[in-house]
Amino acid sequence: MAAFSLPERIDIAEICPRDGFQSVKEFIPTESKNAIIDELAQTGIRTMEVTSFVSPKAIPQMADAADVMAHFRSKWKGKVTSVALIPNLRGAEGALAAEVDWMNFVISASEDHNMSNTRRTVDASLEEFRRVGELKGDTKLRLSVATAFMCPFAGPVPPEKVIYVMDQALEAGADGVTLCDTIGKADPKYLVDTLATLRERFGDYPLTLHLHATYGMALANMLAALDAGITSFDAAAGGLGGCPFAPGASGNVAMEDMVFMARQMGVETGIDLEKVLAVARDMESVYGLKTDSHLSAVKPGSCCA
Amino acid sequence: MAAFSLPERIDIAEICPRDGFQSVKEFIPTESKNAIIDELAQTGIRTMEVTSFVSPKAIPQMADAADVMAHFRSKWKGKVTSVALIPNLRGAEGALAAEVDWMNFVISASEDHNMSNTRRTVDASLEEFRRVGELKGDTKLRLSVATAFMCPFAGPVPPEKVIYVMDQALEAGADGVTLCDTIGKADPKYLVDTLATLRERFGDYPLTLHLHATYGMALANMLAALDAGITSFDAAAGGLGGCPFAPGASGNVAMEDMVFMARQMGVETGIDLEKVLAVARDMESVYGLKTDSHLSAVKPGSCCA
Repeated sequence: MAAFSLPERIDIAEICPRDGFQSVKEFIPTESKNAIIDELAQTGIRTMEVTSFVSPKAIPQMADAADVMAHFRSKWKGKVTSVALIPNLRGAEGALAAEVDWMNFVISASEDHNMSNTRRTVDASLEEFRRVGELKGDTKLRLSVATAFMCPFAGPVPPEKVIYVMDQALEAGADGVTLCDTIGKADPKYLVDTLATLRERFGDYPLTLHLHATYGMALANMLAALDAGITSFDAAAGGLGGCPFAPGASGNVAMEDMVFMARQMGVETGIDLEKVLAVARDMESVYGLKTDSHLSAVKPGSCCA
Repeated sequence: MAAFSLPERIDIAEICPRDGFQSVKEFIPTESKNAIIDELAQTGIRTMEVTSFVSPKAIPQMADAADVMAHFRSKWKGKVTSVALIPNLRGAEGALAAEVDWMNFVISASEDHNMSNTRRTVDASLEEFRRVGELKGDTKLRLSVATAFMCPFAGPVPPEKVIYVMDQALEAGADGVTLCDTIGKADPKYLVDTLATLRERFGDYPLTLHLHATYGMALANMLAALDAGITSFDAAAGGLGGCPFAPGASGNVAMEDMVFMARQMGVETGIDLEKVLAVARDMESVYGLKTDSHLSAVKPGSCCA
């Protein structure tokens, strides 16, 4: 019988304020966003994706990015690392003006998905990434590889396409790389096989995983990734967001589900499960946001609690 | 980097007609049960838990057990192996009269849970099991160990308690053993550690796993179990049932979610995913049953499909 290996400690970045809120149709008032962010910042997380510097025409929910970042910096700078998503050079200018710690630039490994998502070729996105790299100064720049495993249009994505994007982004000054299972369709075997191929090319270069629960495989993928040496993940409190075009379907893996499994296995996250559950409850009851997590569906006092 | 090992082929028994229907409060007409059973029997499954020979006072939904089994035998005998749950000797008499292929007798590893579930001590249940063993003739007898990993009352269940029940059940003529994660709280590490301890005592004795998705860990546990050499599982089409006292919470792992992950990883189940999804849709739309699976929430044509 084989036994899988587990790290002592992992990092899970809280991405709800960006990737979660982004999927909410009705505009969440800036003060509500800030209040939720303040709650989340006190759960024990070390990194938060706070907002997205994106065209307000494309995503009206993120129109208050500068205000949200200003609030975040005033309260949490030096305590919680801030990340902002940027889709292009213009976004980078906004993020730099707002003094984020990390900019997160998304490029799809799959050509079809990149075109659908950004109306650019992968090479054009990489060219934009290079220009951001020249501009970034001391600010950190992360590459998020969307559709790193499965593409809704092209199916399984060969790891060579991930390598192509990573190679050029690292050369252009990327300080970190996240692999995204954008549609939640990566299975543990495909994920681990991809990681093995990437390891042949990039050695022990640290990778972050952004998993979706759409097909129920997020925690299975987390387990496989832990066994493969991954110690950095994204998750969204309350499981908010991640799949805006499939109402009812799960998207981002819920922070509470990921923290729970880690805790049960003795893997330290530094994150307080009860505090995360309290934020998830508040998002439902105070702010009317629809959460979607396994943990939050288990009623205290029920036979399964 | 470690790589987990996967079998070429696994068996997944369909338990929806017993463990799923049992959680439905309103009585499902016998002809509806039979119609769903007929659909399920054609999905490629090789084993079905068809009903439960239990007191109709305790579970009124199963009052038609003899009729349902008679229908099943008339159509599927020799094609799909039938299983019926029995809680006691009286249930065994009913099951034997109905000519089931397998009787499934449930005993909890946790004393507290067995008392709560059956109002008997574990030893009293084992005594009843022995009497069923004497009565069974050529009919097969399965031991299902409830709370084999976690107990809602006593917390983590030491594997020694599973060994205690298994030891005596095997001596009393058990032909198969299922380990149940009754509240879905087993994590992959606890599960694999328990399996390793059982293997020390029982060698390669084949075990079936009955997993719940309550805490989102069912597929992670499935992956860990595959890696540990388990090739036999239970699942319920549509994710019906398994946690009747936690409304809204997930219970039985959905057949479609399990089949999907297996298929993506190249593990053969013999089960037709599209047919399972069709039954899940029919259970919702034709019979008004509430399904709960990741796969059925993904809308065809959506970005994640």
